[in-house]
Order: sequence, then C-alpha cells, then structure tokens
Amino acid sequence: MRPERFRLGASDARELAERFGTPLYVMDADTIRDRACRYRSAAAAASRRYDVSYASKANSLLGVLALVRAAGLSVDVASEGEFRAAEHAGFLPTQCHFHGNFKSESELDYAVSRGIGTIVIDHFSEIEQLRTREYRGEVVIRVAPGVQPDTNPKISTGQRDTKFGFGIGQGAAREAVRTALRSGLDLKGFHIHVGSQILNLEAHREGARTLAQFAAECRDTLGYKARYLNLGGGLGIRYLPGDRWLDPCDVLPQLVAEMEAHYPMDELTIGYEPGRWIVGEAGVTLYRIGVVKDVGVRTYVAVDGGVSDNPRPAMYGSAYDVEVVPADDRATWDYVTDGPGAAFGTPRARVVTVAGKHCETDTLFPDVEVRQDVVEGDLLQVMCTGAYHHGLSSQYNRFRRPATVLRDGNTYRLIQRRDDWADLFSRESV
Amino acid sequence: MRPERFRLGASDARELAERFGTPLYVMDADTIRDRACRYRSAAAAASRRYDVSYASKANSLLGVLALVRAAGLSVDVASEGEFRAAEHAGFLPTQCHFHGNFKSESELDYAVSRGIGTIVIDHFSEIEQLRTREYRGEVVIRVAPGVQPDTNPKISTGQRDTKFGFGIGQGAAREAVRTALRSGLDLKGFHIHVGSQILNLEAHREGARTLAQFAAECRDTLGYKARYLNLGGGLGIRYLPGDRWLDPCDVLPQLVAEMEAHYPMDELTIGYEPGRWIVGEAGVTLYRIGVVKDVGVRTYVAVDGGVSDNPRPAMYGSAYDVEVVPADDRATWDYVTDGPGAAFGTPRARVVTVAGKHCETDTLFPDVEVRQDVVEGDLLQVMCTGAYHHGLSSQYNRFRRPATVLRDGNTYRLIQRRDDWADLFSRESV
Repeated sequence: MRPERFRLGASDARELAERFGTPLYVMDADTIRDRACRYRSAAAAASRRYDVSYASKANSLLGVLALVRAAGLSVDVASEGEFRAAEHAGFLPTQCHFHGNFKSESELDYAVSRGIGTIVIDHFSEIEQLRTREYRGEVVIRVAPGVQPDTNPKISTGQRDTKFGFGIGQGAAREAVRTALRSGLDLKGFHIHVGSQILNLEAHREGARTLAQFAAECRDTLGYKARYLNLGGGLGIRYLPGDRWLDPCDVLPQLVAEMEAHYPMDELTIGYEPGRWIVGEAGVTLYRIGVVKDVGVRTYVAVDGGVSDNPRPAMYGSAYDVEVVPADDRATWDYVTDGPGAAFGTPRARVVTVAGKHCETDTLFPDVEVRQDVVEGDLLQVMCTGAYHHGLSSQYNRFRRPATVLRDGNTYRLIQRRDDWADLFSRESV
Repeated sequence: MRPERFRLGASDARELAERFGTPLYVMDADTIRDRACRYRSAAAAASRRYDVSYASKANSLLGVLALVRAAGLSVDVASEGEFRAAEHAGFLPTQCHFHGNFKSESELDYAVSRGIGTIVIDHFSEIEQLRTREYRGEVVIRVAPGVQPDTNPKISTGQRDTKFGFGIGQGAAREAVRTALRSGLDLKGFHIHVGSQILNLEAHREGARTLAQFAAECRDTLGYKARYLNLGGGLGIRYLPGDRWLDPCDVLPQLVAEMEAHYPMDELTIGYEPGRWIVGEAGVTLYRIGVVKDVGVRTYVAVDGGVSDNPRPAMYGSAYDVEVVPADDRATWDYVTDGPGAAFGTPRARVVTVAGKHCETDTLFPDVEVRQDVVEGDLLQVMCTGAYHHGLSSQYNRFRRPATVLRDGNTYRLIQRRDDWADLFSRESV
C-alpha cells in the first residue's frame, strides 16, 4: 500500500501558523519512522547483511537525526558540521560514514580523532592523508560508474564527467584499490551514487550492475574481495501527486538481483544511503498569503517567504504541490454550479503563480491550481518540503530563517526556533 | 577613465587566507567609496535635484552600509531586517525607503513607528494599511512599465507580467494614484525598476520614457504633479573582463534627457537605486583549492566552499572571472616556450572546472582558464563577489558561513566573523 505524503489538516495548519508564525517548516515523526522502517525492511528482504545509512545532508536537524537514529539507521555525513550534528543527536562515531569530494585537513583531523567508523575515499591524496594520520577505521572507495541518470544535471553524480570518486572506465578506480591496499588501510568495499531524485529505475540498475562487475574485476585481477558494496541513495519522491511512487521493497531486491548475476552476495553487506526518501515527504511548509494581485496576464499570490526558505525552484526548477488553507473556517470549496463540471461536484479553482516576498522576481510555484476564493490572510501549505529546505535556507534580504516544528502523534514540538533579530547581526561589528 | 575591479595581490591574498581562513569574502572600502561618489556625481550632472539610494539587498553588512552612508547615499530596504540593519549602521529612518511586493503587518507597524521616510507602495491593500496606521511619511507608487529587459528572467522585474507594482497599461497605476491621493497620503511621485544586471541601455531608456509619460498623464488627467521620479537601479557590472563598462556619468544624463522630452525636470527630484553597481566590483572571494582531479574529459578543481557561499551559478547560471593564487611565491607563470605563443610570452594555462565541496554536483565555475601549474593548496580568487554573496549564503551541509574582511587602505578589518560551531546549533533543541 502506498503511504500518504504528510499533510496538515486545515485546523492544525491554522493553529500552528498562529502559534509559531510563518513561514514554518513542519516535520512529521511518524512519516519519518515509517520511511526509515520501510527502507530497512526492504534492505533486509533484499540481502542477509545490510546497512541503511541516512544521508543527513537532506535534513540534519538534531530532532530529525534523533528519530532516524532511533529507527536503527546509521548516518552519512558530508562535512565536519554534519558529523558534529550526528554526534549531538546521539550517533556513535562508529555509526558515521564520512563522504565528500574534498575533506579538508582539519575535517580529517577531527573525524579521525573522534574515531569515525567509515571514510569514503574520493581521490588519491586522501589515501595518503589517512595513512599519515594512522587512521584505523574502515574505508570505502567511491567509484564513478559512468551512468547518466535521468535527473537534473545539478544533482546527477554518477556520470563519467563528475567531481566524485574514481572513474572505472579510465582505470582510476582499480588504481585506487591498489593504492589503498598498499597503504595498509582497512578497505571494506566500494560505493556508488548515481544521483538524486531519480524516478527512472534503469539508472539505478545500471549502477548496481557496474558496481558488482567492478567488485568481480578487483577480485579476479587484484585478488581483493570486497565485503561491502554501497548502492548510494537517489530514489525519487512524489513532489507532484502524479509522480511515480518508488517503493524500496520493490526496488532494492531488483538491484541486488542485478548485482548477484555478477558477484556472490552471501558474504556481502549491501549499503544504502537514502536521504530525501526518508524525510522529503515527511515535511510541509506553511506560508501566510499577503497579496493576491491580478496583473491581467496572470494572478500573483505573494507569500511571506521565498527563495530564502526554498531556493529549489530557482536552483533546480523544482515543482511542488500546494494547497490554500483558508484562514477562517470556510473549509468547504465553492463548487461549479453550471457547465460540464457541475454534475461532478467540481470545486472552483484558479491558476495562480506563487511568488515570494524577496526583492527580486522570486517565483516559487508558477501556474499552480488553488481554490478560487483565495484571499489575503489565507495560508499556503506546500507538500514535500522535508528535504533540502531547512539546510539550504538563508537570511537573504535579512529575513529571519523559519522555525521547524516536529509533529509526533498529537503533540507539536519546536525543534528549531525562528531566527530572532539579534541572530541577524550576531557575527558583525561596525 | 575606467576604474579597475577590486582584486587582491598575491601576497595579500595569501596573508588574509592564512589569518582569517577560507572561504573568505573581502570587500574594498575605496572601491565602494569610489562607486558611490561616481554615482552621486553622475546624478548631480544629470539633474539639479537627485537622491541616490543604496539598494541594501545587494550587501547589507553593517560595515558596508556605514561606508555607503558616509559617502552620502540614502538607503533602500526591502524588509524589516534590512531596515534594522540600516538603522544599526547609522542611517536615520528618514533616509530609508521601504520597498517590497508584500510588506507584512508587523513590518509596516515597525516602519511606521520608527518614522521611516518613504514607503514605496506596491499594491492596493497597502494604501489602506498606511491610511489606517496614520502614516505621515512620504509615499511613492511603484509602477510596472511593461519593459522587457535583456537579463535573466529571475532578476527582470519591469515587464508587464510581474509581481511588482501597478501596471500602467491596464490602468492600475493611475487608479493607485487616485486612491492614494483620496486616502490623504503624501504622494511624492513614482518609481520603476526594469531589472538587475542590465548591460543593454535600451531597456533603461524605455523605462525612463515610460515613467515620464506616466507622470505627464497623471498631471493632465488627474491634476497630480509628481515631485519625484525614481528610475530604480539595474546597471550591470563587469563579472567577466570582456563585459561592457557602464558608467552612470554617461548613462544617467541620457535617461534624464529621455524623460525631459515628456515631463519638465526643473522642479523634479530624480531618484536612483544602485546596489550591485556600488558593491559588486568591490568584493572578491578567496577559496583554498583542495583537490585537482583529471577525469579524462575534464579537470576538476575543488575548493573549500560552494553553493553555500555562492548560489548564483546554480540560481542564475552566472559566470565569474577567477584566478589561481599560488600558495607559495612561485609568483611568476610558466611561459609557453614553443609554438605560436612562444614569441608573445604567453603564460601556460589550462581549462578546468571549479567545483565546490558540497555533497552534490555543485559546479561553481565551468570551463575557466587558470594557470597550468595549479596544485592542491593554492588559493582561488574570484572577482566581483561583493553583491548577492554574503546575503545569499547558507549553512547547507552544515558549513560555517564565511567571514567578511574589509580592506581600507592598508588595513584589514573583520566586519563579520565566520560562523563558529555553536552558531550551527544555536536555534535547536533535541
């Protein structure tokens, strides 16, 4: 059964907006638990040994990390800051995997001194950096499988032309294995990541196949037997109601079967790194609508946030599903009473463009359908904002960044307060 | 004479990177003073009465605002936060112009209670909001001139299809004038802004013409005589060395002449709102290069920042001029010694793609030419980062936002410190 995307009811939305102000990020604990549990079950069904690691870049709020940890996932970090966040949220350093195309000297110092469990090696100098630090944890080599996924180029990472990892085709990956082994590092296995928000399974399958073939090649030519293969993350979520539902319970066994044809799975641990898939559908954003303006060719609806709390439309051209929540309890729609829609109880709707309040074009959601009677003072609920929203937020135009509230059953808890005015100036001196 | 864009010498760059860490924003006080002075002189040459107002969204650091204030400019603010910044930096409320397509109730409360000098009215409800607050300052009506500038759609604002202002063509602008006058507000005049980073003068000219024609129309049909016309900002800067140099000393008199054909200038104050033009060329960013990786089809150079300190390439496809600063004093280039370039002392260069260290593609500067001997540990200096960099910065991937240093003659002063680790968690509770 397909689980729903998290969405607030009208009265809850009104109460939260009143109590915590807008814009407001709201995350749902049950949805996060559900997704984490589904992914773990899928991984367990796909192979005997597995490790599901939450890609914390998607949302590294401490309250979110704590939930993911309680659900039994390990964690990926992509910076010293994310590693510190994971530690604050109660993860043991041994549960942390350190990723990144460029880990600075001080980041490596910190990670090694804290006894981080796994470091994912991305380039040759890193091997030497770990050797000289006498790093005793496990390492994984990130390989670039040369797969071109069908997603936005800004978040596709598995193609040959990438900053990440060692190319298989050019022999760099095999050379990295040889160098790591010679350096005495504890090489656990390999890692790929074809990209993010991929709804087309073929790229994932091709990545899995390439990874298994590479493991077989290393066994046959170098005598090195990987004990761990990590398939990365990248399963897409349903930003729009019509988007394909990708269930790891279907997908992961297919990927493992794809690998099994090339490399025996019995002794192997399969790693996964879902980020967006765990938290994306678990979050919504609430805005207050301030201005409804008909300019002839279009109606603009202005909300009290914008590119500072959601730069994804500007960065990736991302589309969202939105809904007007009336400020009062005129909770029912006005229905079409004549013409073809009348017989089917069609609610009256209109197409508007939602813009933010920043001092630039700041288009958030172009040409979306909302209830026809939208007025100033209503709320706008935006679905699927649990991933890459809080993390990308800025104080552009000296806006205060939104608060985040965690819903857990019937309770709402503030897990990150809104910026206060002092926060805007705390690092400055005149 | 064309002034230079600000750029650090190699030894200064090395010293600053060492002392303050990287990534680092560096702003130059003299360049800011020079640009502010040029704009004021140009305005003075173009008309007897003028007001040059700094669009603080471009860079609202207190240290920058203080310089602009000392140079005799007034200031535009586009939010309560920017207004508070201007006040902190010593501007009087009467020197502040409040812009925005959606000013919230609490923002208007604050601005009115502080006695802000000018409010730029953007939609009909605002007239009523000011009337009920018994606002006694001046108001300006923002009109949408219906001009399609030749710039990125995300920063073009003067076309008919815009969230900003009142359309002239549809009669909304004239209706706004009538309503404002009826409400007893002190209507000073009108405002347009055709867009940002516009290097093509025709759009500016068309905007000026339309504004003057509208003023004439209001005089003739409503008997209202504007005493102030604001031409907005939008003059482009030289992100790339080949970009056109637009000098307000040439441009502003042309625009005023364009207006004079339609409306008498003698009693009029002409307003301008440069933002990027004042500070953009006054800033650079310094990064440390961590990884130089040849992947066959391309060489990637990874730096210790990325989309978190400069989202403009991802948001607008913006291009920049960059330069490798060697970490040691191998300050001279290696020169081509054979082939056609040898005779001309051509330095050896290579084309690379600069990527950030975020855990996504994070391409900053694709296919830029740098010195051929670039190595890990070198610095990268990026020119023209004084506008829309600090303001748009985020803590994505739990990166600490960069510090900003102000150079003033031979001294360097930290005007905003780097985030510390505690800053990353200060708003959270587990």
